[in-house]
Amino acid sequence: MSEYTQTERTRVKRGAKRANYDKETVNAILDEALLCHVSTQLNGKPLLQPTIHWRDGDQLYVHGSSKNGLFKVLLEGAEACIAVTLLDGIVFARSAFHHSVNYRSVLIYGHARLVDDPDEKSRSLDQLIEKFHEGRSKEARPANETELKATSVIAFTLDEVSAKIRTGGPVDDAEDMNLPVWAGVQPVITTLGEIEFESEG
Amino acid sequence: MSEYTQTERTRVKRGAKRANYDKETVNAILDEALLCHVSTQLNGKPLLQPTIHWRDGDQLYVHGSSKNGLFKVLLEGAEACIAVTLLDGIVFARSAFHHSVNYRSVLIYGHARLVDDPDEKSRSLDQLIEKFHEGRSKEARPANETELKATSVIAFTLDEVSAKIRTGGPVDDAEDMNLPVWAGVQPVITTLGEIEFESEG
Repeated sequence: MSEYTQTERTRVKRGAKRANYDKETVNAILDEALLCHVSTQLNGKPLLQPTIHWRDGDQLYVHGSSKNGLFKVLLEGAEACIAVTLLDGIVFARSAFHHSVNYRSVLIYGHARLVDDPDEKSRSLDQLIEKFHEGRSKEARPANETELKATSVIAFTLDEVSAKIRTGGPVDDAEDMNLPVWAGVQPVITTLGEIEFESEG
Repeated sequence: MSEYTQTERTRVKRGAKRANYDKETVNAILDEALLCHVSTQLNGKPLLQPTIHWRDGDQLYVHGSSKNGLFKVLLEGAEACIAVTLLDGIVFARSAFHHSVNYRSVLIYGHARLVDDPDEKSRSLDQLIEKFHEGRSKEARPANETELKATSVIAFTLDEVSAKIRTGGPVDDAEDMNLPVWAGVQPVITTLGEIEFESEG
């Protein structure tokens, strides 16, 4: 545990006070977020794809069709940058300039590894389903060979990683504190609703 | 209005039935989402940054510090790919393989334009504040010259754009429909909470 080593590009330049390299903090963000964005480049053009992710120890997993074009580029050796971002609040300051948002974000640089070991692939796909609903991997009909073949799982080792976090209220300039302008924070709340069950077949 | 012209890379390959090029649909996703991810590349390495965005007609805006490193790369001519993604639900199928998520996502390719016209810059920053809270641009203390100088606004013309949308329940294989496994959709709901006001200074 403890901290990720900072590299030139994971060292947060703008708003350095918001930087965080603590592994436990990073893991909590990765585990809470359902969504990530995976980017890479091909011939000098950016590629970007939203997808769902999950984590086991220092491995971050994403999955997709075995024909996924972005995965192909990554598995040919292109570097990935993955962002996981949680928006927590809208920060209203007394001045327009100091308006802000509260957030927790993680950036991960790394190279993809194809998960081709059958045990790791099965286990990791179970972990994906468990992340979304505990116990579900034991309820649903397991993937058959054709389905497993149609699915690619790729993994990234959490190594070159940084988090950036803003919390709390507005930070106004001293001379603005007495302006007759309200200030505060509006929470942005993401919740899972009640499951809408389908009638049984 | 009407539709975006498909290009080789905005034509959705995987899950083509989910593709959508309707401008009104795209605009609704861009306007509802508070968060976007901007990617580009520098010397064959991916760069990726989460930020907030707003829209006026066919212009998508983002802003940041005038020292923002990603903006510098974009304004030197590197192409951007921007993703805007809303996660709407978790789809539980009878088989592990057909589990899915409901989502609405937009991908935008383009080149950044620095908003250096003072009128457009002021107007667009007002629009940003209005997106988060109607009327706020008339309440908060306006930005002064120093603050405007410290802020860069960049714009992208919405031109090479596609959306991908999944809605509805699980799509199970016919032979799985009678399995004794529940199925359904769990909504993912994002709401804005009550503003927590700061006491006046």
